Amino acid sequence: MKIESVDFFYLSMPEVLDIGDGSQDALLVRISAGGYEGWGECEASPLTSIASYVCPMSHSACKPLHDALKNAQIGAVSDIERISRFVHEQSFDLLQADHTLSGIDIALWDLLGKMRNEPVYRLLGYPKSFPKIPYASQLFGESPEETFEKARKTTDAGYKAVKFGWGPFGKTSRAHDLAQLKAAREGLGHDLRLMIDAGTVWKENSNDARERLDALKEVNAYWLEEPFTNGALEAYHSLANSKPFIPLAAGEGCNNFIQAQAMMKHGGLKFIQIDAGRIGGISAAKKVADLTQQMGIAYVNHTFTSDLALSASIQPYAGIEKDQICEYPVELKPLAKEISKTKIVPDNDGLIQVPDKPGLGIDVNTMALRKYLVDVEIRVKGNLIYSTPEL
Amino acid sequence: MKIESVDFFYLSMPEVLDIGDGSQDALLVRISAGGYEGWGECEASPLTSIASYVCPMSHSACKPLHDALKNAQIGAVSDIERISRFVHEQSFDLLQADHTLSGIDIALWDLLGKMRNEPVYRLLGYPKSFPKIPYASQLFGESPEETFEKARKTTDAGYKAVKFGWGPFGKTSRAHDLAQLKAAREGLGHDLRLMIDAGTVWKENSNDARERLDALKEVNAYWLEEPFTNGALEAYHSLANSKPFIPLAAGEGCNNFIQAQAMMKHGGLKFIQIDAGRIGGISAAKKVADLTQQMGIAYVNHTFTSDLALSASIQPYAGIEKDQICEYPVELKPLAKEISKTKIVPDNDGLIQVPDKPGLGIDVNTMALRKYLVDVEIRVKGNLIYSTPEL
Repeated sequence: MKIESVDFFYLSMPEVLDIGDGSQDALLVRISAGGYEGWGECEASPLTSIASYVCPMSHSACKPLHDALKNAQIGAVSDIERISRFVHEQSFDLLQADHTLSGIDIALWDLLGKMRNEPVYRLLGYPKSFPKIPYASQLFGESPEETFEKARKTTDAGYKAVKFGWGPFGKTSRAHDLAQLKAAREGLGHDLRLMIDAGTVWKENSNDARERLDALKEVNAYWLEEPFTNGALEAYHSLANSKPFIPLAAGEGCNNFIQAQAMMKHGGLKFIQIDAGRIGGISAAKKVADLTQQMGIAYVNHTFTSDLALSASIQPYAGIEKDQICEYPVELKPLAKEISKTKIVPDNDGLIQVPDKPGLGIDVNTMALRKYLVDVEIRVKGNLIYSTPEL
Repeated sequence: MKIESVDFFYLSMPEVLDIGDGSQDALLVRISAGGYEGWGECEASPLTSIASYVCPMSHSACKPLHDALKNAQIGAVSDIERISRFVHEQSFDLLQADHTLSGIDIALWDLLGKMRNEPVYRLLGYPKSFPKIPYASQLFGESPEETFEKARKTTDAGYKAVKFGWGPFGKTSRAHDLAQLKAAREGLGHDLRLMIDAGTVWKENSNDARERLDALKEVNAYWLEEPFTNGALEAYHSLANSKPFIPLAAGEGCNNFIQAQAMMKHGGLKFIQIDAGRIGGISAAKKVADLTQQMGIAYVNHTFTSDLALSASIQPYAGIEKDQICEYPVELKPLAKEISKTKIVPDNDGLIQVPDKPGLGIDVNTMALRKYLVDVEIRVKGNLIYSTPEL
């Protein structure tokens, strides 16, 4: 079937704060064909990604993503592969391309699932999906006291695993970091899994990270996430081989398969965390999931935004029974919560699953989103090449 | 001194063709402070990079590049470092950021050089610059006959080294590739260096590339450039260890220091080719140049556009005497030629040097460029956040 329309919607909270909360704005993609609609979400700067979709061609390897969808068909997995391949072959000098492709690819999988009346994980080759253990993903409090309170609240809510990250962690003294870690552990009690996300704070400096390993061991951290810049293979490798041993997790910053592959082969990771909204979509994420199974590394989704993004990020490993840990954002802004009527929530055993419905199984709530829609116009040589479409 | 203005200019040929020629459009950056003007050039999709400069903040690690220059000072190298650091710490989730930073960083070095009355290479710590051997960089002809004619013409022009790339190479049969290679070698004669650029045609497939090694050996290729996608470490490593041995060159696709570092440490490269207009500017390029000297890898500039881009891309290794090879584009579109009044041309010995003048030593020809200026307007929530400034 011919793809009839591809629309980008930039949504934003009225005020965007200078904090590590990626749910303050969103870029949704809607693709229509044959009476069906697929939805995707880019975990990306909305305006920049829109520009990469509509920009004029610079040369044969720097084409707008629009060119990949011109006269394109959708009806089979090979159609999605063809669009991805076009972008990787003909837009590879357009740096933003993979972030934009991510939302397009997700929307195409959703669309194809609806056309075929199958959940995406089945189109990916998994006979069934397995429940995941959600870890409550949130920011450190500004003080240890605040972190303790957050930890208590999440424990009371029934979570079996909790992650704290960003905020002041790693930015002041070792003593302050230890106080934050202890507050988190005390708030959780001894049995819950505690993940720590350093948010790339030590850049490429493995010594700074190494100084925190004892403290992480003391609170029995399940993993240390993103101590360094994405792709800093030497620093990751060095820390992975330091004592005491703390398993490393990273990968959310990977914006294509080969970056994730390099992190897995040379970074000493035990967990690879992939955001389908950044890595080029569900297609690229599934390639990473396949590689994890060869390498004995655990796959984990990265998600800090909507239920739509959550479903898209779980599908690539929904059928892998042994990889149970799943990031589950618990501090979403209203915009991200309102993106869909469908909610992915823990069941009575505290586990979550992707919806067993066609596509991603998420009903986007267009009515609720109108109030967040950001009006954008881009003109080149006097021609209006983008204006916010109707939601 | 306070930075007073930062202006982006999108320039384009009237018609942009679907060929591997990056000189068909350009994105120039002009930064003013204290009566001085610095100029830089991004090797990037112009509209997308402009959007990344002016877009609203998404969260604390996805800020527009504009924020890095708000109230910024320029007067010392540390001021340039501070701006780079801001972008790497606070815009790392904005994928396009490094391409945009590149032009900003280059303009800042040019500006600082003019303020200090010093060429950029001296600010980088090199006491003097050394002449480079330019290789004439051009596209393969569509047929072996056309390639032969191009090779003859370049030989007649006095070049001692010539590179052919892209076009049909690697896209059809081995026999056709061999015919192209032989035509190039015959046109050059036996003594000239012949470099071959595969333009990432084999993606991640080292077997396809390996099948061409005999042919490359037969024509005594000086290097094989970019057989694979940037960052495909496994494929590079595998080909680097294949027989017959052909030295590998790559790196133009690196958009930050750590990507180049990974290619050097894990890809088996003999030459690393850095485009200052993509890797984050002269600052990041110089870090790569420093690493080459520890690792025994040769540094080569990547440049396929203007004299401004050429000067910026040579400065980072201008003071390294032993690394003599230098990419020199010879098929520029009129736009790229007209960017500057200053021309970097081979001397009587066929060698080139960066201008021994303050900054990059390049006079930008604003008058000539007006006819190429692309009118752009970006509105968000009804506010005009970008319109093409006066040139």
